[in-house]
Amino acid sequence: MDSHIAPVELQKAYRLINHGPTVLVSARHGGVDNVMAAAWACALDFSPPKLTVVLDKATGTRALVDGSGMFVIQVPTVAQLRLTHQVGTSSMADTPDKLARASANLFSIPGHDLPFVAGCSAWLACKVIPEPHNQATYDLYIGEVVGAWADTRAFENGHWKFESADPCWRSLHYVAGGQFYATGEAHVADDGA
Amino acid sequence: MDSHIAPVELQKAYRLINHGPTVLVSARHGGVDNVMAAAWACALDFSPPKLTVVLDKATGTRALVDGSGMFVIQVPTVAQLRLTHQVGTSSMADTPDKLARASANLFSIPGHDLPFVAGCSAWLACKVIPEPHNQATYDLYIGEVVGAWADTRAFENGHWKFESADPCWRSLHYVAGGQFYATGEAHVADDGA
Repeated sequence: MDSHIAPVELQKAYRLINHGPTVLVSARHGGVDNVMAAAWACALDFSPPKLTVVLDKATGTRALVDGSGMFVIQVPTVAQLRLTHQVGTSSMADTPDKLARASANLFSIPGHDLPFVAGCSAWLACKVIPEPHNQATYDLYIGEVVGAWADTRAFENGHWKFESADPCWRSLHYVAGGQFYATGEAHVADDGA
Repeated sequence: MDSHIAPVELQKAYRLINHGPTVLVSARHGGVDNVMAAAWACALDFSPPKLTVVLDKATGTRALVDGSGMFVIQVPTVAQLRLTHQVGTSSMADTPDKLARASANLFSIPGHDLPFVAGCSAWLACKVIPEPHNQATYDLYIGEVVGAWADTRAFENGHWKFESADPCWRSLHYVAGGQFYATGEAHVADDGA
Protein backbone atom coordinates (compact mmCIF):
# COMPACT_ATOMS: atom_id res chain seq x y z
CA MET A 1 0.00 0.00 0.00
CA ASP A 2 1.39 3.35 -1.12
CA SER A 3 2.80 5.39 1.76
CA HIS A 4 0.72 8.40 0.65
CA ILE A 5 -2.54 6.59 1.43
CA ALA A 6 -4.00 7.54 4.80
CA PRO A 7 -7.28 6.67 6.51
CA VAL A 8 -10.08 9.27 6.47
CA GLU A 9 -12.34 9.63 9.54
CA LEU A 10 -15.67 8.01 8.72
CA GLN A 11 -17.63 11.13 9.69
CA LYS A 12 -15.75 13.06 7.01
CA ALA A 13 -15.94 10.35 4.35
CA TYR A 14 -18.86 12.09 2.60
CA ARG A 15 -16.44 14.89 1.64
CA LEU A 16 -14.63 12.50 -0.69
CA ILE A 17 -17.64 12.43 -3.04
CA ASN A 18 -19.61 15.52 -2.03
CA HIS A 19 -18.35 17.51 -5.04
CA GLY A 20 -20.06 15.03 -7.38
CA PRO A 21 -17.15 13.29 -9.12
CA THR A 22 -17.51 10.39 -11.48
CA VAL A 23 -16.30 7.32 -9.58
CA LEU A 24 -14.97 3.84 -10.19
CA VAL A 25 -16.87 0.94 -8.65
CA SER A 26 -14.89 -2.22 -7.95
CA ALA A 27 -15.90 -5.55 -6.47
CA ARG A 28 -14.59 -9.07 -5.88
CA HIS A 29 -16.46 -12.37 -5.78
CA GLY A 30 -15.60 -15.98 -6.50
CA GLY A 31 -12.03 -15.14 -7.44
CA VAL A 32 -13.06 -12.46 -9.96
CA ASP A 33 -12.25 -8.74 -9.66
CA ASN A 34 -13.93 -6.12 -11.82
CA VAL A 35 -14.06 -2.35 -12.11
CA MET A 36 -16.60 -0.07 -13.79
CA ALA A 37 -17.10 3.68 -14.01
CA ALA A 38 -20.23 5.33 -12.59
CA ALA A 39 -21.30 8.93 -12.92
CA TRP A 40 -24.36 8.20 -10.80
CA ALA A 41 -22.99 7.88 -7.28
CA CYS A 42 -23.97 10.21 -4.46
CA ALA A 43 -23.63 10.68 -0.71
CA LEU A 44 -26.74 9.70 1.26
CA ASP A 45 -25.91 10.21 4.96
CA PHE A 46 -23.19 11.53 7.27
CA SER A 47 -23.13 9.12 10.19
CA PRO A 48 -22.94 6.30 9.68
CA PRO A 49 -21.87 7.40 6.22
CA LYS A 50 -23.93 5.97 3.39
CA LEU A 51 -24.00 6.49 -0.34
CA THR A 52 -26.04 5.50 -3.37
CA VAL A 53 -24.77 4.15 -6.67
CA VAL A 54 -26.64 3.07 -9.80
CA LEU A 55 -25.43 -0.29 -11.14
CA ASP A 56 -26.99 -1.32 -14.43
CA LYS A 57 -28.14 -4.94 -14.65
CA ALA A 58 -25.88 -5.45 -17.68
CA THR A 59 -22.66 -4.74 -15.77
CA GLY A 60 -20.38 -7.53 -14.65
CA THR A 61 -19.44 -5.58 -11.54
CA ARG A 62 -23.05 -5.63 -10.32
CA ALA A 63 -23.02 -9.43 -10.26
CA LEU A 64 -19.92 -9.35 -8.05
CA VAL A 65 -21.57 -6.83 -5.72
CA ASP A 66 -24.63 -9.06 -5.50
CA GLY A 67 -22.41 -12.03 -4.73
CA SER A 68 -20.21 -10.47 -2.06
CA GLY A 69 -22.40 -7.71 -0.64
CA MET A 70 -19.38 -5.38 -0.77
CA PHE A 71 -17.90 -2.83 -3.16
CA VAL A 72 -15.41 0.01 -3.32
CA ILE A 73 -16.22 3.51 -4.57
CA GLN A 74 -13.04 5.30 -5.59
CA VAL A 75 -12.40 8.75 -7.02
CA PRO A 76 -10.32 8.70 -10.21
CA THR A 77 -8.13 11.61 -11.24
CA VAL A 78 -7.46 13.60 -14.40
CA ALA A 79 -4.37 11.40 -14.83
CA GLN A 80 -6.80 8.43 -15.05
CA LEU A 81 -9.06 9.90 -17.73
CA ARG A 82 -8.35 7.12 -20.24
CA LEU A 83 -8.63 4.39 -17.60
CA THR A 84 -11.95 5.81 -16.38
CA HIS A 85 -13.44 5.97 -19.85
CA GLN A 86 -12.16 2.52 -20.77
CA VAL A 87 -13.53 0.68 -17.72
CA GLY A 88 -16.78 2.57 -18.30
CA THR A 89 -17.17 1.51 -21.92
CA SER A 90 -15.76 -2.05 -22.07
CA SER A 91 -17.10 -5.20 -20.46
CA MET A 92 -15.25 -8.20 -19.10
CA ALA A 93 -17.82 -10.37 -20.90
CA ASP A 94 -16.45 -9.23 -24.28
CA THR A 95 -12.96 -8.27 -23.18
CA PRO A 96 -11.65 -10.69 -20.53
CA ASP A 97 -8.45 -8.64 -20.15
CA LYS A 98 -10.44 -5.42 -19.68
CA LEU A 99 -8.53 -4.37 -16.55
CA ALA A 100 -5.09 -4.96 -18.07
CA ARG A 101 -6.05 -3.12 -21.26
CA ALA A 102 -7.21 -0.14 -19.22
CA SER A 103 -4.04 -0.28 -17.06
CA ALA A 104 -6.24 -0.66 -13.99
CA ASN A 105 -3.91 -1.95 -11.30
CA LEU A 106 -5.43 -3.27 -8.10
CA PHE A 107 -4.02 -3.21 -4.57
CA SER A 108 -5.13 -4.48 -1.18
CA ILE A 109 -5.88 -2.77 2.09
CA PRO A 110 -5.42 -5.03 5.14
CA GLY A 111 -8.69 -6.15 6.70
CA HIS A 112 -10.74 -5.64 3.53
CA ASP A 113 -11.18 -8.43 0.97
CA LEU A 114 -11.80 -5.94 -1.84
CA PRO A 115 -9.96 -4.76 -4.97
CA PHE A 116 -8.81 -1.14 -4.70
CA VAL A 117 -7.77 0.69 -7.88
CA ALA A 118 -4.29 2.17 -7.64
CA GLY A 119 -3.69 5.81 -8.52
CA CYS A 120 -7.07 7.14 -7.41
CA SER A 121 -7.35 10.02 -4.93
CA ALA A 122 -9.83 8.40 -2.51
CA TRP A 123 -11.42 5.06 -1.68
CA LEU A 124 -14.60 4.17 0.22
CA ALA A 125 -15.15 0.53 1.18
CA CYS A 126 -18.89 -0.11 1.29
CA LYS A 127 -21.21 -2.82 2.57
CA VAL A 128 -24.50 -3.18 0.70
CA ILE A 129 -27.59 -2.33 2.74
CA PRO A 130 -29.97 -4.74 1.00
CA GLU A 131 -32.95 -2.96 -0.55
CA PRO A 132 -34.24 -5.48 -3.10
CA HIS A 133 -37.02 -3.21 -4.39
CA ASN A 134 -34.61 -0.35 -5.17
CA GLN A 135 -32.09 -2.71 -6.72
CA ALA A 136 -34.65 -4.44 -8.95
CA THR A 137 -36.74 -1.41 -9.91
CA TYR A 138 -34.17 1.38 -10.17
CA ASP A 139 -30.74 -0.40 -10.27
CA LEU A 140 -30.16 1.68 -7.11
CA TYR A 141 -27.79 0.33 -4.46
CA ILE A 142 -27.27 1.77 -0.99
CA GLY A 143 -23.92 1.19 0.68
CA GLU A 144 -22.73 1.90 4.19
CA VAL A 145 -19.17 3.20 4.17
CA VAL A 146 -17.12 0.96 6.47
CA GLY A 147 -13.66 2.31 5.62
CA ALA A 148 -12.30 5.41 3.88
CA TRP A 149 -8.84 6.42 2.69
CA ALA A 150 -7.32 9.17 0.59
CA ASP A 151 -4.03 9.97 -1.06
CA THR A 152 -2.60 12.74 1.09
CA ARG A 153 -1.29 14.51 -2.00
CA ALA A 154 -4.95 15.23 -2.93
CA PHE A 155 -6.94 15.13 0.36
CA GLU A 156 -5.54 15.70 3.84
CA ASN A 157 -6.88 16.65 7.28
CA GLY A 158 -10.45 16.36 6.02
CA HIS A 159 -9.98 18.67 3.01
CA TRP A 160 -9.33 18.41 -0.70
CA LYS A 161 -6.13 20.19 -1.72
CA PHE A 162 -6.94 20.86 -5.38
CA GLU A 163 -5.80 24.47 -5.05
CA SER A 164 -2.23 23.44 -4.21
CA ALA A 165 -1.92 19.94 -5.68
CA ASP A 166 -0.79 19.18 -9.20
CA PRO A 167 -3.82 19.53 -11.56
CA CYS A 168 -3.46 15.84 -12.49
CA TRP A 169 -5.01 15.05 -9.06
CA ARG A 170 -8.29 16.81 -9.82
CA SER A 171 -11.46 14.76 -10.00
CA LEU A 172 -13.40 13.97 -13.16
CA HIS A 173 -17.05 14.86 -13.81
CA TYR A 174 -18.54 12.98 -16.75
CA VAL A 175 -21.11 14.49 -19.07
CA ALA A 176 -21.61 12.21 -22.11
CA GLY A 177 -19.84 10.90 -25.20
CA GLY A 178 -16.36 10.73 -23.66
CA GLN A 179 -16.57 14.33 -22.41
CA PHE A 180 -15.50 15.13 -18.88
CA TYR A 181 -14.90 18.26 -16.87
CA ALA A 182 -12.17 18.40 -14.24
CA THR A 183 -12.89 19.90 -10.83
CA GLY A 184 -12.08 23.60 -11.12
CA GLU A 185 -11.22 26.56 -8.98
CA ALA A 186 -12.14 26.97 -5.32
CA HIS A 187 -14.77 29.43 -4.11
CA VAL A 188 -15.61 30.18 -0.49
CA ALA A 189 -19.01 31.60 0.39
CA ASP A 190 -19.06 34.27 3.07
CA ASP A 191 -22.07 34.32 5.36
CA GLY A 192 -23.49 37.26 3.48
CA ALA A 193 -25.58 38.21 6.50
CA MET B 1 -39.47 33.98 -18.93
CA ASP B 2 -36.02 35.03 -20.05
CA SER B 3 -35.54 34.70 -23.81
CA HIS B 4 -32.32 32.72 -23.22
CA ILE B 5 -34.24 29.85 -21.61
CA ALA B 6 -34.91 26.96 -23.99
CA PRO B 7 -36.42 23.51 -23.50
CA VAL B 8 -34.04 20.53 -23.26
CA GLU B 9 -35.08 17.19 -24.79
CA LEU B 10 -36.10 14.88 -21.96
CA GLN B 11 -33.74 12.12 -23.13
CA LYS B 12 -30.82 14.53 -22.65
CA ALA B 13 -32.02 15.99 -19.36
CA TYR B 14 -29.62 13.79 -17.36
CA ARG B 15 -26.74 15.78 -18.87
CA LEU B 16 -27.83 18.81 -16.88
CA ILE B 17 -26.78 17.13 -13.62
CA ASN B 18 -24.46 14.35 -14.79
CA HIS B 19 -21.35 16.32 -13.81
CA GLY B 20 -22.44 16.24 -10.16
CA PRO B 21 -23.24 19.88 -9.41
CA THR B 22 -24.74 21.10 -6.18
CA VAL B 23 -28.36 21.99 -6.96
CA LEU B 24 -31.20 24.11 -5.66
CA VAL B 25 -34.45 22.35 -4.82
CA SER B 26 -37.61 24.45 -4.96
CA ALA B 27 -41.22 23.61 -4.28
CA ARG B 28 -44.65 25.21 -3.90
CA HIS B 29 -47.61 24.15 -1.77
CA GLY B 30 -50.51 25.93 -0.11
CA GLY B 31 -49.38 29.32 -1.33
CA VAL B 32 -45.84 28.92 0.02
CA ASP B 33 -42.69 28.79 -2.11
CA ASN B 34 -39.34 27.68 -0.73
CA VAL B 35 -35.84 26.93 -2.00
CA MET B 36 -33.01 24.91 -0.46
CA ALA B 37 -29.56 23.83 -1.61
CA ALA B 38 -28.70 20.15 -1.99
CA ALA B 39 -25.33 18.61 -2.71
CA TRP B 40 -26.90 15.16 -2.70
CA ALA B 41 -28.81 14.99 -5.97
CA CYS B 42 -28.01 12.50 -8.72
CA ALA B 43 -29.30 11.16 -12.00
CA LEU B 44 -31.03 7.77 -11.73
CA ASP B 45 -32.25 6.90 -15.23
CA PHE B 46 -32.20 8.10 -18.84
CA SER B 47 -35.68 7.40 -20.18
CA PRO B 48 -37.94 8.35 -18.71
CA PRO B 49 -35.41 10.52 -16.92
CA LYS B 50 -35.36 10.13 -13.17
CA LEU B 51 -33.19 11.51 -10.39
CA THR B 52 -32.66 11.13 -6.67
CA VAL B 53 -32.37 13.89 -4.09
CA VAL B 54 -31.88 13.72 -0.33
CA LEU B 55 -34.28 16.01 1.56
CA ASP B 56 -33.67 16.18 5.30
CA LYS B 57 -36.77 15.97 7.49
CA ALA B 58 -35.85 19.32 9.06
CA THR B 59 -36.17 21.24 5.79
CA GLY B 60 -39.20 23.37 5.03
CA THR B 61 -38.89 22.53 1.35
CA ARG B 62 -39.45 18.82 2.03
CA ALA B 63 -42.86 19.59 3.55
CA LEU B 64 -43.84 21.42 0.36
CA VAL B 65 -42.62 18.50 -1.77
CA ASP B 66 -44.66 16.11 0.38
CA GLY B 67 -47.70 18.36 -0.02
CA SER B 68 -47.55 18.90 -3.76
CA GLY B 69 -45.69 15.83 -5.04
CA MET B 70 -43.64 18.12 -7.27
CA PHE B 71 -40.29 19.92 -7.11
CA VAL B 72 -37.73 21.65 -9.30
CA ILE B 73 -34.04 20.75 -9.38
CA GLN B 74 -32.04 23.66 -10.77
CA VAL B 75 -28.33 24.13 -11.35
CA PRO B 76 -26.93 27.30 -9.77
CA THR B 77 -23.91 29.12 -11.15
CA VAL B 78 -20.71 30.63 -9.78
CA ALA B 79 -22.52 33.97 -9.94
CA GLN B 80 -25.02 32.50 -7.45
CA LEU B 81 -22.46 31.30 -4.89
CA ARG B 82 -23.79 33.50 -2.10
CA LEU B 83 -27.43 32.71 -2.94
CA THR B 84 -26.67 28.96 -2.96
CA HIS B 85 -24.91 29.04 0.39
CA GLN B 86 -27.59 31.23 1.95
CA VAL B 87 -30.59 29.12 0.93
CA GLY B 88 -28.59 26.08 2.09
CA THR B 89 -27.89 27.45 5.57
CA SER B 90 -31.00 29.45 6.49
CA SER B 91 -34.52 28.22 7.15
CA MET B 92 -37.84 29.90 6.47
CA ALA B 93 -38.90 28.77 9.97
CA ASP B 94 -36.37 31.16 11.53
CA THR B 95 -36.07 33.63 8.67
CA PRO B 96 -39.45 34.17 6.99
CA ASP B 97 -37.86 36.47 4.40
CA LYS B 98 -35.18 33.86 3.59
CA LEU B 99 -35.70 34.08 -0.17
CA ALA B 100 -35.58 37.89 -0.29
CA ARG B 101 -32.48 37.98 1.89
CA ALA B 102 -30.75 35.51 -0.43
CA SER B 103 -31.90 37.48 -3.51
CA ALA B 104 -33.59 34.32 -4.77
CA ASN B 105 -36.01 35.56 -7.43
CA LEU B 106 -38.63 33.14 -8.72
CA PHE B 107 -40.19 32.92 -12.16
CA SER B 108 -42.87 30.81 -13.81
CA ILE B 109 -42.83 28.45 -16.75
CA PRO B 110 -46.23 28.04 -18.45
CA GLY B 111 -47.87 24.72 -17.71
CA HIS B 112 -45.96 24.10 -14.49
CA ASP B 113 -47.27 25.30 -11.12
CA LEU B 114 -43.77 25.41 -9.65
CA PRO B 115 -41.32 28.11 -8.52
CA PHE B 116 -38.22 28.31 -10.74
CA VAL B 117 -35.17 30.20 -9.44
CA ALA B 118 -34.01 32.91 -11.85
CA GLY B 119 -30.37 33.08 -12.92
CA CYS B 120 -29.65 29.35 -12.81
CA SER B 121 -28.22 27.52 -15.82
CA ALA B 122 -30.72 24.64 -15.93
CA TRP B 123 -34.04 23.53 -14.47
CA LEU B 124 -35.65 20.10 -14.17
CA ALA B 125 -39.33 19.93 -13.17
CA CYS B 126 -39.89 16.68 -11.29
CA LYS B 127 -42.83 14.62 -10.13
CA VAL B 128 -42.26 12.53 -7.00
CA ILE B 129 -42.40 8.77 -7.54
CA PRO B 130 -43.71 7.85 -4.10
CA GLU B 131 -41.37 5.50 -2.24
CA PRO B 132 -42.44 5.88 1.39
CA HIS B 133 -39.78 3.50 2.74
CA ASN B 134 -36.92 5.40 1.07
CA GLN B 135 -38.34 8.75 2.11
CA ALA B 136 -38.83 7.74 5.75
CA THR B 137 -35.66 5.67 6.21
CA TYR B 138 -33.12 7.52 4.09
CA ASP B 139 -34.69 10.94 3.35
CA LEU B 140 -34.29 9.76 -0.26
CA TYR B 141 -36.75 11.03 -2.88
CA ILE B 142 -37.05 9.80 -6.44
CA GLY B 143 -38.37 12.19 -9.06
CA GLU B 144 -39.35 11.67 -12.65
CA VAL B 145 -38.25 14.59 -14.80
CA VAL B 146 -41.32 15.91 -16.63
CA GLY B 147 -39.78 19.07 -18.08
CA ALA B 148 -36.25 20.39 -18.60
CA TRP B 149 -34.87 23.76 -19.65
CA ALA B 150 -31.49 25.44 -19.84
CA ASP B 151 -30.07 28.90 -20.36
CA THR B 152 -28.63 28.74 -23.85
CA ARG B 153 -25.64 30.83 -22.74
CA ALA B 154 -24.51 27.81 -20.65
CA PHE B 155 -26.08 24.72 -22.28
CA GLU B 156 -27.19 24.42 -25.89
CA ASN B 157 -27.88 21.62 -28.38
CA GLY B 158 -27.50 19.01 -25.65
CA HIS B 159 -24.09 20.21 -24.46
CA TRP B 160 -22.65 22.38 -21.71
CA LYS B 161 -20.65 25.31 -23.09
CA PHE B 162 -18.38 25.96 -20.11
CA GLU B 163 -15.33 26.14 -22.37
CA SER B 164 -16.67 29.14 -24.26
CA ALA B 165 -19.12 30.70 -21.80
CA ASP B 166 -18.22 33.33 -19.23
CA PRO B 167 -16.79 31.55 -16.13
CA CYS B 168 -19.65 32.96 -14.04
CA TRP B 169 -21.88 30.33 -15.71
CA ARG B 170 -19.92 27.35 -14.35
CA SER B 171 -21.62 25.02 -11.91
CA LEU B 172 -20.85 24.75 -8.19
CA HIS B 173 -19.71 21.60 -6.40
CA TYR B 174 -20.01 21.85 -2.62
CA VAL B 175 -17.56 20.23 -0.22
CA ALA B 176 -18.21 21.49 3.32
CA GLY B 177 -17.98 24.60 5.50
CA GLY B 178 -18.89 27.09 2.76
CA GLN B 179 -16.27 25.67 0.39
CA PHE B 180 -17.18 25.01 -3.22
CA TYR B 181 -15.32 24.11 -6.37
CA ALA B 182 -16.43 25.41 -9.76
CA THR B 183 -16.65 23.10 -12.72
CA GLY B 184 -13.22 23.19 -14.37
CA GLU B 185 -11.58 22.49 -17.68
CA ALA B 186 -12.87 20.09 -20.32
CA HIS B 187 -11.20 16.77 -21.09
CA VAL B 188 -12.16 14.39 -23.87
CA ALA B 189 -11.25 10.71 -23.62
CA ASP B 190 -10.12 9.03 -26.79
CA ASP B 191 -11.07 5.43 -27.25
CA GLY B 192 -7.58 4.29 -26.35
CA ALA B 193 -8.13 1.02 -28.18
